[in-house]
Amino acid sequence: MKLLHIDSSILGNDSVSRTLSAEIVARQVALHPSIEVTYRDLASEIAEHLSIGHVAVRHGAAVEEPGLLGDIKKGDEYLDELFDADIVVVGAPMYNFSVSSQLKIWIDRIVVSGRTFKYSDTGDIQTLLPTSKKIFIASTRGSAYSAGSPYAALEHHESYLKGVFAFLGQHDVTVIRAEGLAFGPEAKNAAIAQARGEIASISA
Amino acid sequence: MKLLHIDSSILGNDSVSRTLSAEIVARQVALHPSIEVTYRDLASEIAEHLSIGHVAVRHGAAVEEPGLLGDIKKGDEYLDELFDADIVVVGAPMYNFSVSSQLKIWIDRIVVSGRTFKYSDTGDIQTLLPTSKKIFIASTRGSAYSAGSPYAALEHHESYLKGVFAFLGQHDVTVIRAEGLAFGPEAKNAAIAQARGEIASISA
Repeated sequence: MKLLHIDSSILGNDSVSRTLSAEIVARQVALHPSIEVTYRDLASEIAEHLSIGHVAVRHGAAVEEPGLLGDIKKGDEYLDELFDADIVVVGAPMYNFSVSSQLKIWIDRIVVSGRTFKYSDTGDIQTLLPTSKKIFIASTRGSAYSAGSPYAALEHHESYLKGVFAFLGQHDVTVIRAEGLAFGPEAKNAAIAQARGEIASISA
Repeated sequence: MKLLHIDSSILGNDSVSRTLSAEIVARQVALHPSIEVTYRDLASEIAEHLSIGHVAVRHGAAVEEPGLLGDIKKGDEYLDELFDADIVVVGAPMYNFSVSSQLKIWIDRIVVSGRTFKYSDTGDIQTLLPTSKKIFIASTRGSAYSAGSPYAALEHHESYLKGVFAFLGQHDVTVIRAEGLAFGPEAKNAAIAQARGEIASISA
């Protein structure tokens, strides 16, 4: 059994999403002691932006630039890790209403036609990934964006991540959310405590 | 009168969003011959990802790392260009249902508390930008994501950009869209022709 743990916060030890993603992983390790964990810190080890060369290789072109070789290799590693993972835990802070640019880069490397999805002859999307993965998103945000809040329409964060995973055939997605983190220490601590309670009750 | 022209496609000369954004700019130059154009190609001149150091400086910290100085300077240039622009033209291809990671980096540098917006004492958002800007988005996408299409729920691209601009008090946003570009040459050419017709009819 394998778990892929991804962090994308730029805040290092001050990051709530890192704290929560680590606690989700710890919970999974407690539930599945033999689980093998792979860790990717997207903020400290930043992949290249998507490039015309990268896209061309994904469409079958030969790798002609030496610099592209390492870039494609990293993309292949990301793909292999995703294929192999039974559980994926993504630490995903909201930055300006969406995911971090670092996490967007990871998404651009896993949504690959012919690798993780394809279009059928009738134009339908077919995932090429096993669809049995359990996905956990440690979602953190400064303000409140849940349905009904004044800024809900600005929310392109959880909804975006869930859309990407759904496109890849992954519908078993659990969001552990701590929001309103910028509303003062009391609100922040309450939001974190609630998220921790949800993590403690993860049963599989 | 000033115009800020931004491109973010990775496809170079093959990019439809670059073609359309250039034509929108040409149309504005025809309408306002003395307009001063500033150009930013975000794909060829990639700024740093948002970092803990960048955010700290934006919250008042001193610049301690020498490498951060250039990064902050570029962010200041982006902010100055946005403040100065009467018209902003953004070439914005959809990559995996959202904006490119390069464009996300630009957004992360212009949505800055205390510079382009602030929260009032009652928690309301107040833009610090002049609200009279005209925004044009050259939106391109491989599939169709308009309301009513099967993949509309995956759309975090135009809706995201419009949300960001609205947050910054910019509500005069015109989208010039060419979508379904991956549906074969005929559909692609028709989508581009339609967008060009819309550009030709821009009257101010």
